[in-house]
Amino acid sequence: MFELQDGRTELLEKIEALFERKRYAELRDLLEPMEAADIAALCQDLEEKVPVVFRLLPKELAAEVFVELDSDDQKVLIHSFSNTELKEVLEELYLDDAADIVEEMPAGVVKRILRQCNPEMRKSINEILKYPEDSAGSIMTPEFVDLKANMTVEDALKHIRRTGPDKETINICYVIDERRHLIGLLTIRTLLLAAEDDVIGDIMERHLIAVRTLDDQEAVARALGKYDFLALPVVDKENRLVGIVTVDDAMDVLQEEVTEDIEKMAAILPSDKPYLKTGTLETYKARIPWLMLLMISATFTGQIIASFESALAAATILTAYIPMLMDSGGNCGSQASVTVIRGLSLGEITFSDFFRVLWKELRVAVVCGVTLAVANFAKLMLVDRLLFGNPMVTTPVAAVICGTLVCTVVCAKLVGCSLPLLAKRVGFDPAVMASPFITTIVDALSLLIYFRFASAILGL
Amino acid sequence: MFELQDGRTELLEKIEALFERKRYAELRDLLEPMEAADIAALCQDLEEKVPVVFRLLPKELAAEVFVELDSDDQKVLIHSFSNTELKEVLEELYLDDAADIVEEMPAGVVKRILRQCNPEMRKSINEILKYPEDSAGSIMTPEFVDLKANMTVEDALKHIRRTGPDKETINICYVIDERRHLIGLLTIRTLLLAAEDDVIGDIMERHLIAVRTLDDQEAVARALGKYDFLALPVVDKENRLVGIVTVDDAMDVLQEEVTEDIEKMAAILPSDKPYLKTGTLETYKARIPWLMLLMISATFTGQIIASFESALAAATILTAYIPMLMDSGGNCGSQASVTVIRGLSLGEITFSDFFRVLWKELRVAVVCGVTLAVANFAKLMLVDRLLFGNPMVTTPVAAVICGTLVCTVVCAKLVGCSLPLLAKRVGFDPAVMASPFITTIVDALSLLIYFRFASAILGL
Repeated sequence: MFELQDGRTELLEKIEALFERKRYAELRDLLEPMEAADIAALCQDLEEKVPVVFRLLPKELAAEVFVELDSDDQKVLIHSFSNTELKEVLEELYLDDAADIVEEMPAGVVKRILRQCNPEMRKSINEILKYPEDSAGSIMTPEFVDLKANMTVEDALKHIRRTGPDKETINICYVIDERRHLIGLLTIRTLLLAAEDDVIGDIMERHLIAVRTLDDQEAVARALGKYDFLALPVVDKENRLVGIVTVDDAMDVLQEEVTEDIEKMAAILPSDKPYLKTGTLETYKARIPWLMLLMISATFTGQIIASFESALAAATILTAYIPMLMDSGGNCGSQASVTVIRGLSLGEITFSDFFRVLWKELRVAVVCGVTLAVANFAKLMLVDRLLFGNPMVTTPVAAVICGTLVCTVVCAKLVGCSLPLLAKRVGFDPAVMASPFITTIVDALSLLIYFRFASAILGL
Repeated sequence: MFELQDGRTELLEKIEALFERKRYAELRDLLEPMEAADIAALCQDLEEKVPVVFRLLPKELAAEVFVELDSDDQKVLIHSFSNTELKEVLEELYLDDAADIVEEMPAGVVKRILRQCNPEMRKSINEILKYPEDSAGSIMTPEFVDLKANMTVEDALKHIRRTGPDKETINICYVIDERRHLIGLLTIRTLLLAAEDDVIGDIMERHLIAVRTLDDQEAVARALGKYDFLALPVVDKENRLVGIVTVDDAMDVLQEEVTEDIEKMAAILPSDKPYLKTGTLETYKARIPWLMLLMISATFTGQIIASFESALAAATILTAYIPMLMDSGGNCGSQASVTVIRGLSLGEITFSDFFRVLWKELRVAVVCGVTLAVANFAKLMLVDRLLFGNPMVTTPVAAVICGTLVCTVVCAKLVGCSLPLLAKRVGFDPAVMASPFITTIVDALSLLIYFRFASAILGL
C-alpha cells in the first residue's frame, strides 16, 4: 500500500541506480504499482531517461503517465517516438486528453499526431478544438455511455459491457432520443439495483441539469461542485447531447481558476505554467505591466504631497505618520475587496447585494476605525509624547492623525467593497480590483483627508 | 431540462404567490424536479416558510435539502420537527453528513438528534466526531461497499445489489480480509466488464493509495485531485479500512482551504461562514488583530522618516516620491510572495527549491527594477522637470530616486519569496506571509535605502 508521502529522493536514487546497472526488469517492477501522476512527477527529474522509462511501462499506464506530463516533456517524448509508438499511445488516450495535448503542441507536432490518429479520433479532436478556450466544449469528452429510453435494464447492461471499456466513465449513463436529444440520465447504481426487465424510460431521472457547449468552464466546474455530480452533460444549441464534463476535469479547472484569481489579486497577469517552469522573461512579462501602471498612479499620490509641501514644512511631524496612515488604509481596503471578490467567485454575493454589502462594511469600518484611532491616540500621547518626550506631538496633532485614521478606514472599506462589485456589474474581472489597485486609490484618499484635517485643526 | 442560470427572483415570486393562494400541490410540483442545492439556496429567502416547504418535499429530497442548508437554518428546522419527523430525516442522511450537522449544533440539539438515531448510527456518528477537525477521519464516511477476495463477480454484484442503497458510492468497491485489512479495490466498471465467475482476488487492483484517519484533510483532497480518484480509502493505525473520502467532499474541502488562504493573504483571520451571514462584530474580530499589528509596525516606518527629518527639510522634494517607492516595493513583494504561497499550497514548490526560487526572483527583480527605474527617470526628467518646470528635480535627485527603486524592487522580491518558504520550513502557515506583512517590512527597507542613497549622492 502506498502512503501519501513517499520518499521522493530515495526513490529517484533507486531508479538512477537501477539505470546504471541496466536492471530494466527490476525498474519496471518498481514503477508498475505506482500511480501515473507520481511517475510523471518523477519524470521531471529523470530528463533524458524519460523515453526509456516510458518504454518499460505497460501501454495503458504509459499513456496515463503521458497525459500527466507537462507539455514540454510531452513534446520531447513525441519526438522520440516512432510513428507506431505514437499511434499506440494515441489509441490509449481519452479524446479530451488527446485534444488538450494537441492544443499545446506546435503546428509540426500537431500534424504528426493527427496523421497517426484514426479518422474518427481525428474528427473528434478537431471538433473539441473548435470550441473557444475556457468553454464547456473545450473540456468535455464525447466518450460517454448513451442509452435509449426503450431499452430494458438487461439491454442497457449489455450495451455498457460492450462499449464501456472506451468510455471515460460508466458511472452516469445518458438517455437520448433518436435525434440525439438528451432526455434523461441514470446512475450505474440505479441500473444495478433495478430489475432486469425494467425499462430505462421508466426508471431514468428526467429532471436534469445540462450545460451548453459555450458555457464558461468555471461555471460548469462550480455547478459540478455545488450539485455533487460526477459528470454534467453538455448539449449543443439544438439540445443534442455532444459530450460530458467529468468531476476530475472540473477539479483541475477550479484549481486553475483559483490560481488565476490569486495572481490577479496580486497584480500579476495570469499564466498557466507552474512557477519553476516559467523563464525569467515570462515571469517579467507577467509582472511588469501592473507594476508600471501602479507606479505611475502612485506618482499622483506624490503630487498630493508636493502640493502640500508648505504645510508639511510648517509641521514636519506630520510626515512621520504618512506611512502608518497609508498602510492602514491599504490593509483595510484589501480586507474588504478580497472578501467581496471571493464571495463573488463562490456565488455567495451578487450585485443585487450591493447596498447590503456597503452597509455592512460601513458598520465594520466605523468599529475598526474607532478602535485603531483610540489605540493610536493612546500610543501618541503615552509613548511618543510622554516616553520619548517629543514636544511636536500635541493634542491637536494627535487629533489630526486619529481623525484621518477613522475617515481613511471608512473610505478604504467602502472603496474596497464597492469596486469589485461595480467591476463585476460592467463585465470586468472583479479580481483585478484587489489590494494593489485599491491601495493606490486609498493612498491618495488618505493623504487628501490628512491634509484637510491638518488645515482645519492646525490651521496650516 | 434546467439550465445553470435560472431566474431566481421570478422563481421566488412564483413560490410566494403559490403560498398566498395555498396551492401547496402546485408548489410541490414546482420544487420536486429541482436540485437539492437550488432548493436550499431558495430557502435562504423563504425564512419562516421553510418548514412548510420542507414538509411538501418527498422524504429523500427533503433530507438532501436539509444537508445543503446552513447550520442556522438547520437549527430552526430541527426545532420545528416533531421527534418522528426528525427521526425520518436522520434515517435518510449519510453518516458523514449527519456527523457534520451534529458538529455544528448546540449541545441541547445534539442530544435530541442522538436520541432519535438508531444505536448503530449513534455509534458511527460518535466515532466520526472523535477525529480532530481537519483530519481525514472527520470527513470520511463509513458507508462504503466492502467485498471479500474469495467472492466471485456474481457474488459481489449480488452483495452490491443488496447493500448498495445505503452506501455513499458503489463506484469503487474495497476488498478487505477477515481482519478488515484493506487488500485491494475494484471499480464498478471492472466488475461489470468481468466474467461472472471471475474471482475478486484475481481481478482486483492490489496497488492502491490509502490515507490514514489523522492525515490532513487538505492533503487528502489534493491527493484525490492529483490522482483523479472518485474516492480514497481511509485506514486506521492497524491498516484496517474504516471509511472512505469521496470526491464531492474533497471539492468542498479544497474550496474552504482556498478561501482560508485568500483570507490569510489579505490579513483576515479565517472564518467558515459566508460573508453575508457573519455579523458586524464577527467580521470586526476577524479583521482587527492584523490591522492593529500592522498599524503598530507601520509606526516604525514613521520613526525612520522622523529620524531623517533634517534631510527631508533640506530636500523637501524627496518626500513627494515616498509613496511611489513604498507602493512599488510593496507590489513587487506581494507578487513574489503570493506566487510562492500558491506554489507551496499546490505542491509545485517545496523548501528544497529555496535557492532556485531565490535565484529566479533575483533575476526577475533586476529586470523589473531596471525597467521601472528607466521609465521613472524618463518621467522625472521629461514630465516633472521639462513639462512642469520643477527646478528641484535635478539629475542627482532623479538618480537617488531611480537607484532606490532598483534596490527596493530587488529587496522586496527577495523578502517576498523567502519569507513564505521560511515560514513553511518552521511550520507556520506561509499564507500569513503575504502582501500586508511583506509591505510593512518593505516599506521600512525602501525608506532606509532612500535615505542612504540621498545622503550618499546629495550629501545630506
